[in-house]
Amino acid sequence: MNSALCRKLGIEFPLFAFSHCRDVVAAVSRAGGMGVFGAVLYTPDQLRTELEWIDAHCGGKPYGVDLIVPTSLQRQEEGGPSDEQLLGALPREHLEFVESVLARNGVPADDLAERRRALLHVSHNLNTAGAEEMLDVAFSFPVRLIANALGTPPQIMLDRAREAGVTVAALVGSKKHAERQIAAGVDILVAAGGEAGGHCGEVSTMVLVPEVVSVAGDTPVLAAGGIVTGRQMAAAVAMGAAGAWCGSVWLTTAEGEPGQRIKDKMLAASCSDTIRSRSRTGKTSRQLRSAWTEAWEAGGPDPLPMPLQSLISEPALGKIEKLAEGGHEGAADLATYWVGQGVGLMNRMTSAGAVVQEFKQDYLDAAERLMATLEE
Amino acid sequence: MNSALCRKLGIEFPLFAFSHCRDVVAAVSRAGGMGVFGAVLYTPDQLRTELEWIDAHCGGKPYGVDLIVPTSLQRQEEGGPSDEQLLGALPREHLEFVESVLARNGVPADDLAERRRALLHVSHNLNTAGAEEMLDVAFSFPVRLIANALGTPPQIMLDRAREAGVTVAALVGSKKHAERQIAAGVDILVAAGGEAGGHCGEVSTMVLVPEVVSVAGDTPVLAAGGIVTGRQMAAAVAMGAAGAWCGSVWLTTAEGEPGQRIKDKMLAASCSDTIRSRSRTGKTSRQLRSAWTEAWEAGGPDPLPMPLQSLISEPALGKIEKLAEGGHEGAADLATYWVGQGVGLMNRMTSAGAVVQEFKQDYLDAAERLMATLEE
Repeated sequence: MNSALCRKLGIEFPLFAFSHCRDVVAAVSRAGGMGVFGAVLYTPDQLRTELEWIDAHCGGKPYGVDLIVPTSLQRQEEGGPSDEQLLGALPREHLEFVESVLARNGVPADDLAERRRALLHVSHNLNTAGAEEMLDVAFSFPVRLIANALGTPPQIMLDRAREAGVTVAALVGSKKHAERQIAAGVDILVAAGGEAGGHCGEVSTMVLVPEVVSVAGDTPVLAAGGIVTGRQMAAAVAMGAAGAWCGSVWLTTAEGEPGQRIKDKMLAASCSDTIRSRSRTGKTSRQLRSAWTEAWEAGGPDPLPMPLQSLISEPALGKIEKLAEGGHEGAADLATYWVGQGVGLMNRMTSAGAVVQEFKQDYLDAAERLMATLEE
Repeated sequence: MNSALCRKLGIEFPLFAFSHCRDVVAAVSRAGGMGVFGAVLYTPDQLRTELEWIDAHCGGKPYGVDLIVPTSLQRQEEGGPSDEQLLGALPREHLEFVESVLARNGVPADDLAERRRALLHVSHNLNTAGAEEMLDVAFSFPVRLIANALGTPPQIMLDRAREAGVTVAALVGSKKHAERQIAAGVDILVAAGGEAGGHCGEVSTMVLVPEVVSVAGDTPVLAAGGIVTGRQMAAAVAMGAAGAWCGSVWLTTAEGEPGQRIKDKMLAASCSDTIRSRSRTGKTSRQLRSAWTEAWEAGGPDPLPMPLQSLISEPALGKIEKLAEGGHEGAADLATYWVGQGVGLMNRMTSAGAVVQEFKQDYLDAAERLMATLEE
């Protein structure tokens, strides 16, 4: 496929793989797509290590990085709140609720405080100094694409990308977002429907894609949200998208970052087995339904704003995943991860490279299916 | 387009128009699609009148009827609750809430009781005797398709359709629904995504269509939910659908049943301007966001089960629409109607026949756009 977007980025097939797992990123780029490394959970040093690995394993093919760089970066305090301020801001009610959910499922809460401290760097990434450090690391590699996962990229990110000749993508969940991003000057819009895993809006991919395309002018639009097969990618392209941006489909590959118990739950799930909730990050994100998400829906305290809610949820979920992998049944019931409604179509474990090849074939078949309706 | 489904039903283009407006039904059938008359709000006598009109105005082309026939028909009392029992079951809290919302917007509640009595026949349609009367009327016309809007059709509906050689369609919002309908023996599945107007589930069209297709075997699947353009219909067909089932797009045609003030609100709305709520019928249905839906979300009492909630909402909404059409601003703020997220793509008033022609052209263009990506 030799579209304008493919030529611009030097890729063969406009399938973009958002993943927190370097193996997925490198495998997808090698297979002709575009791997995009989701870096928000890493420290600058970790990001450097991961990008070095990707650079060495992507066979010289293009790859990208996805950060959460707040729009209002310049308005925040240089250093942001201290670690002690953050920890002190966590209400007893939330901490005790998590402990009660764990206790009910026989999961010890012994090392939550330690796990919490290990996560403090994530909030650092959301401050000016931290975000600039992450940008420094990203731009020290020959990345071809940089994406901002939440909101309009700040001017500094756009300026540095221009300077380095790097394409800027931004996620949008509504027409209003899209208009704002175009005014800011981003190069690619990722129209992410409400069925997407992770942070998502309410408008579905089927309507958001044509709506965003209608205001995007010459800016290419990638379709995201629920897309885990080539036929869905073909559907998006028929509606005017320039390609697809997928996150969930890589989770059940051999390389995907979730533990096997979570992968097994995903492979068994239907499209009805996800839930949108603020309980993981403080903003609405879509996750696999589990005893953990049910507990928050049934009677959890009101989730805290970012980044505080992650300091409540992530230590517990890290512990849960570890025990679930060891065969702990209570933990396995609680285990969850971000995933879109497309999870119901992810029924077979495979490899990231094989997913790209299957997408290509399924895309072709879908185009032929559509053409056949004109010929009959 | 000469697909198996088109041949089976004797239509030219597999675009199905669900509408409560006879003009839309006849116009779409005449234009080569399949008009399906939504009959749930009518009495048997009214249904006969409407079908006589459609039969006389559809140019001999096929048309269908959509009813809500409860699965558990046979288990209900023959006659169902009496009118006085139904009216007596409406809590004072709900009646007073509606009056307070109207009062806040300067809408007099003078004739609500009278409007409520005029609606009692709708609940009659949900009982055995009433539903059989509706089926008697429907099958006295040469309908080609009969659809059940909620749940699995009862055996009596399937048997009578078989006997009359009428194709049976049923709406499904999840894989589980689809499996149940196939087991019951329906001929066409309408996979209705969560972005649909009216009653809807949570799974989006983009994932529900391939999920339902994967379990449907030889049963044709129509895509519904958010589809208001030919490019979206093409997208659905690329994913394996046999056509599209659309309700919202007809609302802003010249023939569409809403008043002009509601049409104007729809034409101005974006895809983000709808809301799923139980406040209209007791079951979750998607509607245009308005001061009415906001009031229920912000502090309304818990909606009642079907058919009681309709006896709370419809009299008020009927009054609101009437005043809104007369230029009453408070009523115009409250005015709402069922519509899907595709409302953001409905930006120009046209005619139902013209919508069908635009669908055909847009479908062709979308197929060519997809094919072009393979040729480049």
